[in-house]
Amino acid sequence: MGNSFGKIFKLTSFGESHGNAIGGIIDGCPAGLELDFEFIQKQLHRRRPGQSSVTTKRKEDDVVEFLSGIFQGKTLGTPIGFIINNKDHNPDDYEQLKSVFRPSHADFSYEKKYGVRDYRGGGRSSARETACRVVAGSIAQQILKSQGVDVKAYVSQIKDISVNKTYLEVNLDQIDDNIIRCPDREIAKKMISLIQETTNNGDSLGGKISCVALEVPAGWGEPVFDKLHADLAKAMLSINAVKGFDYGLSNISEFLGSDVNDIIEDLSGKTATNNSGGIQGGISNGNDIYFNIYFKPVATIMKKQDSIDIDGNKIILQAKGRHDTCVLARAVPVVECMTALVLVDHYLRSKTNKI
Amino acid sequence: MGNSFGKIFKLTSFGESHGNAIGGIIDGCPAGLELDFEFIQKQLHRRRPGQSSVTTKRKEDDVVEFLSGIFQGKTLGTPIGFIINNKDHNPDDYEQLKSVFRPSHADFSYEKKYGVRDYRGGGRSSARETACRVVAGSIAQQILKSQGVDVKAYVSQIKDISVNKTYLEVNLDQIDDNIIRCPDREIAKKMISLIQETTNNGDSLGGKISCVALEVPAGWGEPVFDKLHADLAKAMLSINAVKGFDYGLSNISEFLGSDVNDIIEDLSGKTATNNSGGIQGGISNGNDIYFNIYFKPVATIMKKQDSIDIDGNKIILQAKGRHDTCVLARAVPVVECMTALVLVDHYLRSKTNKI
Amino acid sequence: MGNSFGKIFKLTSFGESHGNAIGGIIDGCPAGLELDFEFIQKQLHRRRPGQSSVTTKRKEDDVVEFLSGIFQGKTLGTPIGFIINNKDHNPDDYEQLKSVFRPSHADFSYEKKYGVRDYRGGGRSSARETACRVVAGSIAQQILKSQGVDVKAYVSQIKDISVNKTYLEVNLDQIDDNIIRCPDREIAKKMISLIQETTNNGDSLGGKISCVALEVPAGWGEPVFDKLHADLAKAMLSINAVKGFDYGLSNISEFLGSDVNDIIEDLSGKTATNNSGGIQGGISNGNDIYFNIYFKPVATIMKKQDSIDIDGNKIILQAKGRHDTCVLARAVPVVECMTALVLVDHYLRSKTNKI
Amino acid sequence: MGNSFGKIFKLTSFGESHGNAIGGIIDGCPAGLELDFEFIQKQLHRRRPGQSSVTTKRKEDDVVEFLSGIFQGKTLGTPIGFIINNKDHNPDDYEQLKSVFRPSHADFSYEKKYGVRDYRGGGRSSARETACRVVAGSIAQQILKSQGVDVKAYVSQIKDISVNKTYLEVNLDQIDDNIIRCPDREIAKKMISLIQETTNNGDSLGGKISCVALEVPAGWGEPVFDKLHADLAKAMLSINAVKGFDYGLSNISEFLGSDVNDIIEDLSGKTATNNSGGIQGGISNGNDIYFNIYFKPVATIMKKQDSIDIDGNKIILQAKGRHDTCVLARAVPVVECMTALVLVDHYLRSKTNKI
Repeated sequence: MGNSFGKIFKLTSFGESHGNAIGGIIDGCPAGLELDFEFIQKQLHRRRPGQSSVTTKRKEDDVVEFLSGIFQGKTLGTPIGFIINNKDHNPDDYEQLKSVFRPSHADFSYEKKYGVRDYRGGGRSSARETACRVVAGSIAQQILKSQGVDVKAYVSQIKDISVNKTYLEVNLDQIDDNIIRCPDREIAKKMISLIQETTNNGDSLGGKISCVALEVPAGWGEPVFDKLHADLAKAMLSINAVKGFDYGLSNISEFLGSDVNDIIEDLSGKTATNNSGGIQGGISNGNDIYFNIYFKPVATIMKKQDSIDIDGNKIILQAKGRHDTCVLARAVPVVECMTALVLVDHYLRSKTNKI
Repeated sequence: MGNSFGKIFKLTSFGESHGNAIGGIIDGCPAGLELDFEFIQKQLHRRRPGQSSVTTKRKEDDVVEFLSGIFQGKTLGTPIGFIINNKDHNPDDYEQLKSVFRPSHADFSYEKKYGVRDYRGGGRSSARETACRVVAGSIAQQILKSQGVDVKAYVSQIKDISVNKTYLEVNLDQIDDNIIRCPDREIAKKMISLIQETTNNGDSLGGKISCVALEVPAGWGEPVFDKLHADLAKAMLSINAVKGFDYGLSNISEFLGSDVNDIIEDLSGKTATNNSGGIQGGISNGNDIYFNIYFKPVATIMKKQDSIDIDGNKIILQAKGRHDTCVLARAVPVVECMTALVLVDHYLRSKTNKI
Repeated sequence: MGNSFGKIFKLTSFGESHGNAIGGIIDGCPAGLELDFEFIQKQLHRRRPGQSSVTTKRKEDDVVEFLSGIFQGKTLGTPIGFIINNKDHNPDDYEQLKSVFRPSHADFSYEKKYGVRDYRGGGRSSARETACRVVAGSIAQQILKSQGVDVKAYVSQIKDISVNKTYLEVNLDQIDDNIIRCPDREIAKKMISLIQETTNNGDSLGGKISCVALEVPAGWGEPVFDKLHADLAKAMLSINAVKGFDYGLSNISEFLGSDVNDIIEDLSGKTATNNSGGIQGGISNGNDIYFNIYFKPVATIMKKQDSIDIDGNKIILQAKGRHDTCVLARAVPVVECMTALVLVDHYLRSKTNKI
Repeated sequence: MGNSFGKIFKLTSFGESHGNAIGGIIDGCPAGLELDFEFIQKQLHRRRPGQSSVTTKRKEDDVVEFLSGIFQGKTLGTPIGFIINNKDHNPDDYEQLKSVFRPSHADFSYEKKYGVRDYRGGGRSSARETACRVVAGSIAQQILKSQGVDVKAYVSQIKDISVNKTYLEVNLDQIDDNIIRCPDREIAKKMISLIQETTNNGDSLGGKISCVALEVPAGWGEPVFDKLHADLAKAMLSINAVKGFDYGLSNISEFLGSDVNDIIEDLSGKTATNNSGGIQGGISNGNDIYFNIYFKPVATIMKKQDSIDIDGNKIILQAKGRHDTCVLARAVPVVECMTALVLVDHYLRSKTNKI
């Protein structure tokens, strides 16, 4: 269970990292959308391993193949099935993982839940699965575009190197100007250096991604459990390695009400400040929606670590293979796509609001 | 839409703050549970307005009436319907809100979504609705107890007054020893003083609640979208005024992997450290689950504020009535109950994991 | 589980026949609908026990009380909570049922499923629960009316007394002209006589209800699992005592394709014949939707019957109290309301079909 | 929407008849099931076109390829993705369908719903999609087998040639002894003759399939909307060309209560008669579950028919290609598999019934 996301525009995904393929089904995509396949593939390339010196050197083509739901370039309204083949792997590389539990990985919790697991490279717990989210989310982005909505994410912090500016103070067109996808060029350079240094040390890094949805109309979202920001929080926390989420002004809990209340200026709903982050009572209020997502450092490190095997014996683990020191540059399109999935679903829901 | 929570153990709630009643239906509660009605009512009392000097002076009895699903003290397995009557209100008190949009409230976003709204005291956007969550959640807590799981929340920060200790370093049995529900008595005193001072200034406060689920067995949760912590994040962000959530070690994104990886010590899954917060890959790993929830300051303040009316005219607003300066003490049982709803749902799901 | 119906316009119901109350929550009702409360109550009265000589002599007022989701006569878009109080019953009347299993009742299957049950009058298995469907469905009917769609059901057969005409050959305005709700007056008289005779014999009757949805626009429904007629079938079979469903021409399986294919006449989609019953591929095609629902005879009869008690001892049962000999007249509004729930849900879904 | 079936054991399917492939995802399959791949493929072969003289002469290999969720022959608990490739088709064969609406087909209703459609061979409305149900359902059958439950369907009527015996009076082991899958050999011969004769006349046939689920334990099902038989009805009506469903004694509505009530004989729940069809109040009662499904004649016939094109012009249609005269033999495994999907879902639900 738990492999579907969305109520009307719904992605169901499948696939282990080292099985035959990963893929998914998008149900509820409106008919008549002329798809921009290049955009989808571009987003996949931004997520792909091996794209730059700050990502793992492993290579995957990550070319999506659509199997249904599209005819003569347009969506049919029927489910869109798609697959992304996994390249051939040498299963021997993973035999060492068969009987051990890696620290801060999901090996142990999967074993306890299912009593059986695909130990090759993380199986279902691998972030490889996020490629399916990018396929669906980049279609969602195209629907949003038809409504004038644009979603942009960027790396705003790696360890203690941080962009100390809001999204309004950086140039969002500059995100892809560098390989770490940080729109502040000076900070980006420092981040890249830190990643290289940390790679050399065999260690790993986490950080923060910031995301903004521009020009979201007022009225998307639901009042109680499916608050727009609650669904965004779930979407973000469902991404591998994410540990935290906040929206609107960071550290707002340390202010007085009189410091942070947003004064509505006119009937468009625009507010003098936007400390609320574009959502009130779970429903968009016509201002930009912005939020932060916090990632833990990658669990796989090149240093020796203690652990146990499946018989409970103490062992010393030494990771093999090529791993990301820091996943944030690759996570940027995943964040954008999950955001788009949430927004499109609430856009479609909003069509049934009124008589 | 969006008024249901949970997949197997599902709460659907209804009610505006100033309608006839609020209430809900719990579908999927297992049969044969002997209910402790006093515990349910005790949790409601911890959420109730007027309970102490740090909450609003408004009084509500908040007595729950069960209408179905229970027979001779035991759950039947059929839906549990319940209501909590709203006390009589003088509708005139709210006539002033009929045609204005309050800053940082949901008046405007509801108006845009629905084209109609119950302007009396927030209507559906009022936190009064959380009483229904407490009813369902305190039943969920009883099911968890039968599995040995206990959920405890407490106030760990008000504005800049913070408990700088982990949940392991405070006495969780001491939470209700003071009216702010902070287990550190010295810090609690400072918090209470700050609330009183802020009330006198006509201003409002936010803060942080910390929560821990003790003795959760390994194997609860789902791999991808319904990760246990993703559902917790959604649950927490769905509570009124919550702006952020993180689980496990705070600021984990500022560490190196080698600093924070958790080493598994034996086949119980217990780890030497628990920076991961008891969840790996979305599935509980047998360690305590702990997390923080960040609240913005209450939107209603007693100071004059600019705004507009529904015709777009500039107005000056001056709140009337009795409001909370800080909701955190009352939010503690809500956090516990939403946590319990998530955990029970995943407990029941886990029963279908294996052949 | 299983106490909700609908995907967008969703009814969740609760209540045992002899608990405090029955009721429900309608989530997803569009905002801004001006409710006709008299119509709702009129439909409830058509379902009510004690309404005529062909129904049980038990009396229930069945007055619905709305608790939320409505303000100044209009729907708010928020959940509509409602209750119908159960009148006081003498619990002693049901003590005899505590330890026995009645033939062709749900006593045994509930006991096996839950291990506990409310034995008073059927509890959750009682058809009393259908009153909640009438409340929600009669709101759904009002939404349909705004789209020009009208739903009419009538009794077309009791035992072997049958209206041998199609819905086009009877006068649908005449349904309520007699207490059995059969639009053919001569047949109605015979049905009423048969019911009276059967009541005198202490026996019970089943029959058939026919239903038609007029002026349903083309394009409602879904292609595969949620075919419009599949959802109608589920809706109908979910009504107590229903054993069968067919739509379009009865006995169509006994014809040749060339006999029954419907020829489309123009771009409105109107067909020369309508053997298909207004649906192709699960989606409405612009013609009337019509179908039949088959009810078994009432399980409670006044004759002595063999059975066993909960210890497995053989017993002889003799029913007490006042029961319906035939439920079809009362089931007519339930059929209409369940039909309306299906149609409204698919109407709202259809709003998200196209870009 | 509407391309998923099941609540816990959930199949989501995709695919147009003439797209690249059809396929699906099974979410919620318990971990640890050792799969019998031959059985799955055997069920696919029973559904496959071209299998015998009573089916279309078109050939499809219909070999399923599993992409995920299975490791070393066992289910992982993660989603099972699978595809069945469509063989190459000559798109020119279908150009004639581009601009016409076939009688009693879904061309027109899809056009109205989506404004766009894949006109090649029915697209999403083609019964080719049922192959995905067979894949999922034959896995479901294996889970049921582990619980001792067996599902058997057979052809009991073609036009007016009918097996006038109950499932107890035929030999269920004999179903596959003939190509029409009717366990009465004499009747089977007549059916086969009728099909051949009708094929020669360019016409088509419908009929009835009977199905029985043996040894279903008491306690599966839900009380109100998701009654076990309501879910079965939906499952059956969701199969292409199905127009009706009934369970238990056929024509039960024409009997008196005293004729058909089932007397419980002992605490196993076995009843002297089983007119109820193994379900009371929506919950299995420990007796065999049996039901009938009614199919209309195939819409495609080889005779000339009137229709209109998409501009509303009157046209005369003459079908080309190779079509089934009667689909019932091929529908038998589909009926079994949809039955198994319903039963497995309720089996898994039943695991959460009790504390």
